[in-house]
Amino acid sequence: MTDDRLTGYRGKLRTALEAAGVEIGDKLEVSVNSQQYKGSLMPRVETYDEWHLIIKMVSGYNIGLAYSEDMNIKKTGTAPKPEFKQPPLPEAEKGLPKVSIISTGGTIASRVDYVTGGVISAMSSRDLLAVVPELVEVADVDADILYSVFSEDIGMEHWAGMAKRAYDKIKAGADGIIFTHGTDTMGYSSAAMSFALQNLPCPVIFVGSQRSSDRPSSDNATNLMGGVYTAAHAPFAEVCIGLHENTSDESISYIRGTKVRKCHTSTRYAFQPVNDFPLARYKDGKVEMLNDRVRPRQDSEPRLLNKFSDKCALVKFHPDYNPAVLDYFLNEDYRGLIIEATGLGQVHQNLWPAVERARKDGVFVGVVSQCTWGKVNLNVYSHGRELIDRGAVPLDDMHGETAYVKLKWCLGQTEELDDVKKLMLTNLVREFNPRTPYLRRMG
Amino acid sequence: MTDDRLTGYRGKLRTALEAAGVEIGDKLEVSVNSQQYKGSLMPRVETYDEWHLIIKMVSGYNIGLAYSEDMNIKKTGTAPKPEFKQPPLPEAEKGLPKVSIISTGGTIASRVDYVTGGVISAMSSRDLLAVVPELVEVADVDADILYSVFSEDIGMEHWAGMAKRAYDKIKAGADGIIFTHGTDTMGYSSAAMSFALQNLPCPVIFVGSQRSSDRPSSDNATNLMGGVYTAAHAPFAEVCIGLHENTSDESISYIRGTKVRKCHTSTRYAFQPVNDFPLARYKDGKVEMLNDRVRPRQDSEPRLLNKFSDKCALVKFHPDYNPAVLDYFLNEDYRGLIIEATGLGQVHQNLWPAVERARKDGVFVGVVSQCTWGKVNLNVYSHGRELIDRGAVPLDDMHGETAYVKLKWCLGQTEELDDVKKLMLTNLVREFNPRTPYLRRMG
Repeated sequence: MTDDRLTGYRGKLRTALEAAGVEIGDKLEVSVNSQQYKGSLMPRVETYDEWHLIIKMVSGYNIGLAYSEDMNIKKTGTAPKPEFKQPPLPEAEKGLPKVSIISTGGTIASRVDYVTGGVISAMSSRDLLAVVPELVEVADVDADILYSVFSEDIGMEHWAGMAKRAYDKIKAGADGIIFTHGTDTMGYSSAAMSFALQNLPCPVIFVGSQRSSDRPSSDNATNLMGGVYTAAHAPFAEVCIGLHENTSDESISYIRGTKVRKCHTSTRYAFQPVNDFPLARYKDGKVEMLNDRVRPRQDSEPRLLNKFSDKCALVKFHPDYNPAVLDYFLNEDYRGLIIEATGLGQVHQNLWPAVERARKDGVFVGVVSQCTWGKVNLNVYSHGRELIDRGAVPLDDMHGETAYVKLKWCLGQTEELDDVKKLMLTNLVREFNPRTPYLRRMG
Repeated sequence: MTDDRLTGYRGKLRTALEAAGVEIGDKLEVSVNSQQYKGSLMPRVETYDEWHLIIKMVSGYNIGLAYSEDMNIKKTGTAPKPEFKQPPLPEAEKGLPKVSIISTGGTIASRVDYVTGGVISAMSSRDLLAVVPELVEVADVDADILYSVFSEDIGMEHWAGMAKRAYDKIKAGADGIIFTHGTDTMGYSSAAMSFALQNLPCPVIFVGSQRSSDRPSSDNATNLMGGVYTAAHAPFAEVCIGLHENTSDESISYIRGTKVRKCHTSTRYAFQPVNDFPLARYKDGKVEMLNDRVRPRQDSEPRLLNKFSDKCALVKFHPDYNPAVLDYFLNEDYRGLIIEATGLGQVHQNLWPAVERARKDGVFVGVVSQCTWGKVNLNVYSHGRELIDRGAVPLDDMHGETAYVKLKWCLGQTEELDDVKKLMLTNLVREFNPRTPYLRRMG
């Protein structure tokens, strides 16, 4: 029994599952505390908790059951296993799949400047190949330097250029795209590419590094190798970010570009999914799919929609927030605001007049939560209803960065408030997750 | 059958529940798709979906079942309905530790408004005692209503009043303080109390609830019971937040008021430590200490420092951030800004002139990271050094909300930029953690 048949299960719980002959995806019945649960065994993603068994029940909901000695596990059926077999080898005359690496800068392409002691963005994409010569064994790789900027300087004009370059490469026959990009604003850029490159035939993967490439602990070789392999061979066609999954150097997780946040300043596994599961994992030279809500690789015509607006802002609410700041944006003819509210979507009532004014001015106001995980819901508390009455639009389980980038994109497509609203609430590239997973532990 | 007996249920599902004679809290068995579920009927809060039946199962987990015509609902028992009887008066001679409950509002003190269906802030602190009569067995409790506001409306004037009331109660002999407070801005208020109440002799604990108190799944009884016990008996003297630690209903974790964030919109264990371990855990009627970096309970003279400034703001940087927004704050004579930068503390270089201007105007600019976990470090990249050269102050492992509240407090103590800088960098109440713990898994 290989490891991936009981992904994430360890200790006594794993032993019990093995004894019952149950593998991920199998049907089972679990009895505990004189209650019976039926469903299919789900993989665990977190690696530190070895006590919870996760079952997808017939109702479609997932449930976590704490392991105890008197738990009885019975296998009741074998589910069709998802196939993670390698794609057929390309015919000799076709050669290896083509992967285009588009470099924008960042730590994966940087090294220490021995004059200032700081890190500068410098390395060419050819240098990347020099660092990881194995790349040429898994794909027919070409590499371009599009920009050489730190990611904090990247904005909508870079996004337009990045999308255009990726589009051109796909039209020219690329089977996968890699963007090398600084990690600091990578989540914003991956959201931007998700909206700017629709109807994708193949993966578009952001790769970066939390360590500069001339340091021994650098993670860029692993991230680049995994990224190129996954771009070339993975069965999905979405924009995602792929960096280390955990403290080990062995696995890389690919997280949907609209559902990902950099949650730590320096660890190599800083990127975590927000209200979603990772799409896939690269480990031991293979890609394993982890998410059943995914766009498959296909023979489709990509669409390039790379216009964005700079007339919108992301605003984090806080106690004693000055409502005049919202008026400032309205006075400056902004067309949209995303408010990172507290909890389920609440802000101080002294902001209500500005929200009302925005509606009158035809300005979109979207509400997300500064909590990171979970969904906003303006129907629970009376103050939420007051916001809805003034035209504010709750944006469900989208987090602030994605909502902001999507709004910039929507305002690049249309100027009509009603159309902006409609677009913002349409699930274009799986940026809303109707089945937000249970919260795994944080912090 | 009054409306509140089937809160949130409508349409065919409600008719089926009425036909089965089931009310909120009752035990029931539901058969559907040849699967059987046992548990208690939960109220619905979202009012827009009339198709899901919510059951709290014996395991403690909630499950949602989609209604279908062949669903069979059977009532198997009547749950004790919540009683709101008045508590017995504590005997004066009993000699239990004194705990003062200061109510500010929020869900722990709220209930459903049956007119709008929303939740309103209403219950008196006496009612809290009625809900949890066992409180009188662990402490000599007194309860005051200081404010009745939703937490999104709380700001520095409330903080001044809250600190004063807690100070007065401690001076009058309280052995512990409980604030009941809405969870949405609880992290900001707990940071405010941490700075406003220094040299504490006893615990000051924020207690709240993620569920309103008339719902069977409410966590307020457990949170209040644990909070009062811990305030009365725990060996530490710090400001902290205490809500559920995990999915079980059994343990409550107490997290330092300056190192805590609400990380999920709705789970009962939404509060997680930021770059710190929890201080303590309440479980099985006992307090267990979890953190060796703690101020012990002691016979000390508390200091009341409850002045704050409203001339500062928390600003979240994002791509295409308009630097004119920083100038707006400077034009409005703000005295300090906290910038939530990306990664290790980077912002777009077009913000540098405003940072330079702030220094010339004697305005404090602090830099934190929007990553939540980890520390800023402006010495790694050349752009970071550029910020330091312009007078920006990196704030190590403090997160945005705490840095903002601390700055409001510092500017309430002094107007001198140099003194503000010195105070901001001094570890006053363990708001900096020199030994930031490893990152546990998130998301």
